[in-house]
Amino acid sequence: MSTVPLLSDEDLSPAARAVFDDIRKTRNTDFVNNFWRALANDPVLLKRTWDSVKEVMAPGALDPLVKELIYVAVSATNNCEYCIRSHTASARAKGMTDAMLMELLAVVGMANETNRLANGLQVPVDEAFR
Amino acid sequence: MSTVPLLSDEDLSPAARAVFDDIRKTRNTDFVNNFWRALANDPVLLKRTWDSVKEVMAPGALDPLVKELIYVAVSATNNCEYCIRSHTASARAKGMTDAMLMELLAVVGMANETNRLANGLQVPVDEAFR
Amino acid sequence: MSTVPLLSDEDLSPAARAVFDDIRKTRNTDFVNNFWRALANDPVLLKRTWDSVKEVMAPGALDPLVKELIYVAVSATNNCEYCIRSHTASARAKGMTDAMLMELLAVVGMANETNRLANGLQVPVDEAFR
Amino acid sequence: MSTVPLLSDEDLSPAARAVFDDIRKTRNTDFVNNFWRALANDPVLLKRTWDSVKEVMAPGALDPLVKELIYVAVSATNNCEYCIRSHTASARAKGMTDAMLMELLAVVGMANETNRLANGLQVPVDEAFR
Amino acid sequence: MSTVPLLSDEDLSPAARAVFDDIRKTRNTDFVNNFWRALANDPVLLKRTWDSVKEVMAPGALDPLVKELIYVAVSATNNCEYCIRSHTASARAKGMTDAMLMELLAVVGMANETNRLANGLQVPVDEAFR
Amino acid sequence: MSTVPLLSDEDLSPAARAVFDDIRKTRNTDFVNNFWRALANDPVLLKRTWDSVKEVMAPGALDPLVKELIYVAVSATNNCEYCIRSHTASARAKGMTDAMLMELLAVVGMANETNRLANGLQVPVDEAFR
Repeated sequence: MSTVPLLSDEDLSPAARAVFDDIRKTRNTDFVNNFWRALANDPVLLKRTWDSVKEVMAPGALDPLVKELIYVAVSATNNCEYCIRSHTASARAKGMTDAMLMELLAVVGMANETNRLANGLQVPVDEAFR
Repeated sequence: MSTVPLLSDEDLSPAARAVFDDIRKTRNTDFVNNFWRALANDPVLLKRTWDSVKEVMAPGALDPLVKELIYVAVSATNNCEYCIRSHTASARAKGMTDAMLMELLAVVGMANETNRLANGLQVPVDEAFR
Repeated sequence: MSTVPLLSDEDLSPAARAVFDDIRKTRNTDFVNNFWRALANDPVLLKRTWDSVKEVMAPGALDPLVKELIYVAVSATNNCEYCIRSHTASARAKGMTDAMLMELLAVVGMANETNRLANGLQVPVDEAFR
Repeated sequence: MSTVPLLSDEDLSPAARAVFDDIRKTRNTDFVNNFWRALANDPVLLKRTWDSVKEVMAPGALDPLVKELIYVAVSATNNCEYCIRSHTASARAKGMTDAMLMELLAVVGMANETNRLANGLQVPVDEAFR
Repeated sequence: MSTVPLLSDEDLSPAARAVFDDIRKTRNTDFVNNFWRALANDPVLLKRTWDSVKEVMAPGALDPLVKELIYVAVSATNNCEYCIRSHTASARAKGMTDAMLMELLAVVGMANETNRLANGLQVPVDEAFR
Repeated sequence: MSTVPLLSDEDLSPAARAVFDDIRKTRNTDFVNNFWRALANDPVLLKRTWDSVKEVMAPGALDPLVKELIYVAVSATNNCEYCIRSHTASARAKGMTDAMLMELLAVVGMANETNRLANGLQVPVDEAFR
């Protein structure tokens, strides 16, 4: 159980309903996942978060699959189970293979390792990198 | 100052020197950055880390630029200044533009935000994502 | 299952029992939650932690509800399920509404996002803030 | 130096300039701090972040000072120097005293400690908290 | 369920099988835990990780039990349930008592607390420590 | 500059002075480092933190050098520069060699890496570890 109710469609305020309508239309599916049902308790937060995610994850200088890989990388680093599972699913839907996932996590693991070696030894930044 | 000496070329053990030779040959430059000069105090750690980084960051199911973007994403999440600066430089050398960097960090920021919304509200994972 | 036994009242050392007595008296309830039953394996750690929590969470320059909100904010950032759930419950007992919880997490999410934008771009601190 | 240029007023695109105008008007000061000058490299990110911060930090179910305290709590937990310094300054401007800051950090420290005790011992969540 | 299949012995590639053989021989048991069964989807990652763990955790300047304690300390700080449980078990197998585990976590908790006090107050490093 | 004044001996309240006297006597040196001078702004926090550190870091089931190694491991994982530098210095004063420091950080790096592999792949905990 979440710490606030997960709102079903009947419980939505008109403002939250409008966001759900846009989620459904944008994703072309009737399914709305629990994350949005929790945020629906605060329609302002719901709308801002949805609008932001839609804008941030759209194609741009980076393609949507690369963006999903980055989302998984951050979520694995922070250990957010919900986000790891939902964005691993999204990345797969956009073409991520098992081989890509394993390589992604190999990079995530390596970066987490060398981050601590550099910090733990307090290595000064080279002039060449400034 | 780092918490161990940054070894100059003259201070290297033969085992560390062999790794530095490979770094120089692989990167086709005489420059060896401080991270490796700190690790050189432990030639076994130096060799393992260099061999692993070389293997992990090589082209594979993901291309090297995407891997650098992921490295920056993790390092920004963990706040490792050394790694942010060195891998931002590496990513630029592999073709990352300012526009790509800004989009990358927009995704990193958004993922860090939604990670805490999902965790803070203890949203249960949908069956569809399992 | 925790990685040490959760001690029932019969298993307590006299030193641990004295702390449990104080917990019950201070909170005016017979219920002692699992966190303290795990710590009871080390009565010195149990006593120091309880005494510290009691002192830190007491009314002072900040009121107890604000302190609970801060506890939830930190626990959501670190993703400690136990702490998120127990301190969300404590905050509700002290008057936190759903609207307050949603706003709290909106701030937590935003702070986690901008922390990574500032770190990822290595923005230098303005003189005005020093 | 940040990893992207800090834009001066003359370097702003019209879209970024419009955001800076709103920052100046909202805050009633000509000063625009470095964070926004770094984000100005991506006017879409700049606008979304500013609009979000303005909305999230406005008075609501929680008052603005409490929101600033929460911002500092998260930033201290994540160790974002820029955010610690800028939001400590903002909190002081809204009335935070030294005594309040010390109590705030006492709670932040305690929460970070007990988060690790609960996680490290894998304490199961009591039914009473679900 | 993990986000990749946990490979049973029959599903292993020859390269993965060779690593499993070494795990079994080194540990003198037929049991191979889930972590390696997940990594087995990428035999290169599996081999590198196993070889690295074997090298890092071997007796050296620090004894193996101390290394396991450090592993638990990091895993508790990051909240990795899998790692907390598997390395707590390993540490117990190497002689860790309940009293040692409780003291270990007391240090971990205290370090996590004072890390935030030092960062939150932006305490400058004394010359004596540089 | 820290975000609160670093108090000199003349600025101390009687309660803070008593703690400083104990720090000097316990450590057998006149030197009091900046961390305590920042905490001295809140004598209650100062006293509780000093008493706790003294108790936690004392010889017990774990020896004081091992406790310092754990402190460095946590501080490197969290990237607290102040704590990395002060506890690396303390560990050296208690006998930590360069070889021990390098091995310590090798374990810290490896644990941070495998934490993310286990979390990123959502590996289920084996029954044997529960």
